[in-house]
Amino acid sequence: MNDPEPIDPGFEARVRASFAKQGLMGTLGASIARVSPGEVDIVLPTSPAVLQQHGFVHAGAVASIADSAAGYAALTLMPPGAGVLTAEFKINLLAPSMGDRILARGRVVKAGRTLTLAQTDVVAERDGQEKLVALLTATLMTMEGRAGVGD
Amino acid sequence: MNDPEPIDPGFEARVRASFAKQGLMGTLGASIARVSPGEVDIVLPTSPAVLQQHGFVHAGAVASIADSAAGYAALTLMPPGAGVLTAEFKINLLAPSMGDRILARGRVVKAGRTLTLAQTDVVAERDGQEKLVALLTATLMTMEGRAGVGD
Amino acid sequence: MNDPEPIDPGFEARVRASFAKQGLMGTLGASIARVSPGEVDIVLPTSPAVLQQHGFVHAGAVASIADSAAGYAALTLMPPGAGVLTAEFKINLLAPSMGDRILARGRVVKAGRTLTLAQTDVVAERDGQEKLVALLTATLMTMEGRAGVGD
Amino acid sequence: MNDPEPIDPGFEARVRASFAKQGLMGTLGASIARVSPGEVDIVLPTSPAVLQQHGFVHAGAVASIADSAAGYAALTLMPPGAGVLTAEFKINLLAPSMGDRILARGRVVKAGRTLTLAQTDVVAERDGQEKLVALLTATLMTMEGRAGVGD
Repeated sequence: MNDPEPIDPGFEARVRASFAKQGLMGTLGASIARVSPGEVDIVLPTSPAVLQQHGFVHAGAVASIADSAAGYAALTLMPPGAGVLTAEFKINLLAPSMGDRILARGRVVKAGRTLTLAQTDVVAERDGQEKLVALLTATLMTMEGRAGVGD
Repeated sequence: MNDPEPIDPGFEARVRASFAKQGLMGTLGASIARVSPGEVDIVLPTSPAVLQQHGFVHAGAVASIADSAAGYAALTLMPPGAGVLTAEFKINLLAPSMGDRILARGRVVKAGRTLTLAQTDVVAERDGQEKLVALLTATLMTMEGRAGVGD
Repeated sequence: MNDPEPIDPGFEARVRASFAKQGLMGTLGASIARVSPGEVDIVLPTSPAVLQQHGFVHAGAVASIADSAAGYAALTLMPPGAGVLTAEFKINLLAPSMGDRILARGRVVKAGRTLTLAQTDVVAERDGQEKLVALLTATLMTMEGRAGVGD
Repeated sequence: MNDPEPIDPGFEARVRASFAKQGLMGTLGASIARVSPGEVDIVLPTSPAVLQQHGFVHAGAVASIADSAAGYAALTLMPPGAGVLTAEFKINLLAPSMGDRILARGRVVKAGRTLTLAQTDVVAERDGQEKLVALLTATLMTMEGRAGVGD
């Protein structure tokens, strides 16, 4: 999308406040690196707590931050009061995730009234070099007027 | 698959030992509930540490145990010494994951020499009732002769 | 789903009438083999018109009948006047599709108000033997009150 | 991928010759619009033969050309004599496919020895305007030394 226009001028504060409520992100040690209209980056430092049996970052941890990046990219373009839920996602793991940290860059491909398609590139960083390790596409739902499902 | 025959008679001990090395599973609080040829169940008690912003289990946590269940179901049928890696997966989230715990039931759909397809049903349990909350399909790769990638 | 109840008693005639309007199914030579609540089977005889370069049925042809089977399985449970559209699908090709004909068996996994998840097994038949060649999962949207989008 | 280097200098002739053998592409009326290293475009004029019940291009027809574009993009980077097979793909349908013709632009995201990830954007063209209607990601397998599976 070229220069999408957020409906909610408070989109960044809203994304950051919602992210802070995601217990899983704190458990993994992930944080928000960047928020802009239609785009959100999430970073995860590599630690034993997020690995699988061979010492790579677990596909589930990669998917977790990639899904949150996609979802929050979608939320930046939703109207105030609407909540975002993931309907489905698919992730291709292209290379073992190793290095100092992994970075998930989510961006909206198409924002619709009910469904939004977003895509996340995940790169592993080692010694300042980036390597593409995963690609996720997600369908996000806009939830409106549902009790308890805001942001 | 009907009654698949494991090549490795020590498949159960092997799956349990590999699972114990997955730092992420310990971080989330997940454990193995069942191992049989071509099938592995993983259980995750619900706690604030694995939730998203609305109080549901985060799609990434659901995907993490569903991916591990699929991967270990595949591993039960692999030859001794081979390692398993996820090439890709897709997950559909059917309902918010709430309740006392969620249970991921992975099973092999087709085991091939290089690629295995497995599918995981995830149910949420509340007061002894089960509800289907997610369906994952995964492509797993058999890795042989690669240093550091066993089990 | 266990014994889903169709809201529209005329579901079978409705599916068959809609299928007859799908130009692509006629072009491929596909036909409906069975319609029941939440389940639709579509059959495609093998012919050079649907093959790829190695003489197997093209993944796109496999996907076409698998998608239609999933979509019409979903339509059997939709209210009269509603139309069905595919939001997304994923297909795993498990073996080359060869033989006399291929058969796609679609069934609803979960019918929701807006989104329905359906799954299709595709088997190739040769000399009366069946072989599983593909597995598709699809998200279908219920379209209501949209001009031109009925059934 | 930035400027991928084809191993086979005859990649374009090879792709065109293989495409000519795909019976399905002829049946649908699709043709190759462009071949370059790591990228292949396929075009499909809109006709009743490829529609679904509402008059849109059938998701299966959209997927068919998107899958072929992804597969042939992958083939441009494969060694001489290797064949390409689709292991799996996922497609998101973003808008009804209408207009004069649809165009599938496939490109390689990452070429591996065994598995290649490719992505295809599909646009519908009407009166010279393009609209994004679908996004496909596919995993392609390189087949070597298998009788009958070349190109």
